[in-house]
Amino acid sequence: MSAILKAGPIHFGPFLVTTQVFHLTPHTFALVNLKPILPGHVLISPRRVVPRVSDLTATETSDLFLTVQRVSRMIERVYSASSLNIAIQDGVDAGQSVPHVHAHVIPRRRGDLDHRGGTDAVYELLDGEEGDLKRVFNTNGDGEGDGERRRAGRERFPKVDDEERAARSLGEMEGEARMLAREMERDVGGGVGLRG
Amino acid sequence: MSAILKAGPIHFGPFLVTTQVFHLTPHTFALVNLKPILPGHVLISPRRVVPRVSDLTATETSDLFLTVQRVSRMIERVYSASSLNIAIQDGVDAGQSVPHVHAHVIPRRRGDLDHRGGTDAVYELLDGEEGDLKRVFNTNGDGEGDGERRRAGRERFPKVDDEERAARSLGEMEGEARMLAREMERDVGGGVGLRG
Repeated sequence: MSAILKAGPIHFGPFLVTTQVFHLTPHTFALVNLKPILPGHVLISPRRVVPRVSDLTATETSDLFLTVQRVSRMIERVYSASSLNIAIQDGVDAGQSVPHVHAHVIPRRRGDLDHRGGTDAVYELLDGEEGDLKRVFNTNGDGEGDGERRRAGRERFPKVDDEERAARSLGEMEGEARMLAREMERDVGGGVGLRG
Repeated sequence: MSAILKAGPIHFGPFLVTTQVFHLTPHTFALVNLKPILPGHVLISPRRVVPRVSDLTATETSDLFLTVQRVSRMIERVYSASSLNIAIQDGVDAGQSVPHVHAHVIPRRRGDLDHRGGTDAVYELLDGEEGDLKRVFNTNGDGEGDGERRRAGRERFPKVDDEERAARSLGEMEGEARMLAREMERDVGGGVGLRG
């Protein structure tokens, strides 16, 4: 993680998310979610802030999806899942809220959403997640600020309430990011800048 | 297309789909849909029949998503779209029906699903599509067979009815595949085996 912090600041759209990033490659980062739909729901984005998949160079595209593949393997192992949903809302008319390419990776287990209506209830929840991402967050300090945020003069990851799911604390997100960073290192044998 | 036919047979899971393929790279093919959710809804798969994204080599993964990117650009242009949904149900517990990696690419326009409940109704329709893909189809000849099917001894693309959408004829699908093959050539300046 210290290598990620040194490599920062890392932005997801207008939001500074450096401390929530758990994996970094030359062109891609992976970050934990404010309100995961299911445990282990993470986002993978290109480091360059562009809205559309078609904006990516071939190098960025390869790096993004090789990272999706590597992160997916780790997430499936760590969260004892058996399947994954991988989804990109590529543009506002497809439901994209933050104008920065992001692939949702959501680990799945048999029957995990039976209480919410079945396997495909994940999509309805995903819509809610995108709804959350676009909301204006509260910029009031809560004692968890790290200074970097203010220096960068950008907004941080949204921390808003939701009828359905409770927003996690920044501390909780950072703890998960550190745990996932260690798990990535177990899989790929390296940290920043390495490609498995 | 003749180059694609020569390169065949191409299988999507157990189904022979050679004549419905409109783009082919060393490791990836793109095919039209039996029951597109929206006009221009296509599927991108690795040529090797494997169920999970994690089964793909790094070369296959890069080739798959570079193809998703190139096909997406063409689809958005040809179908006058402004956005795209890109979705993979990676494993049966994520809703996958045909055990062969496939990325759905669905072109979107502002308000295109307002009559079905709004932008995110695409997911409910996608679930229906996966439901269709897994149904056992009718193998009785209908005069559209091309011989290759029978030689390969595999099933062809499912042609089943659905409450929501009418199945298209094989002729209609093949016509769209030829049109899209020409449009791909306009974009990438080449046919089989070329990478843009």
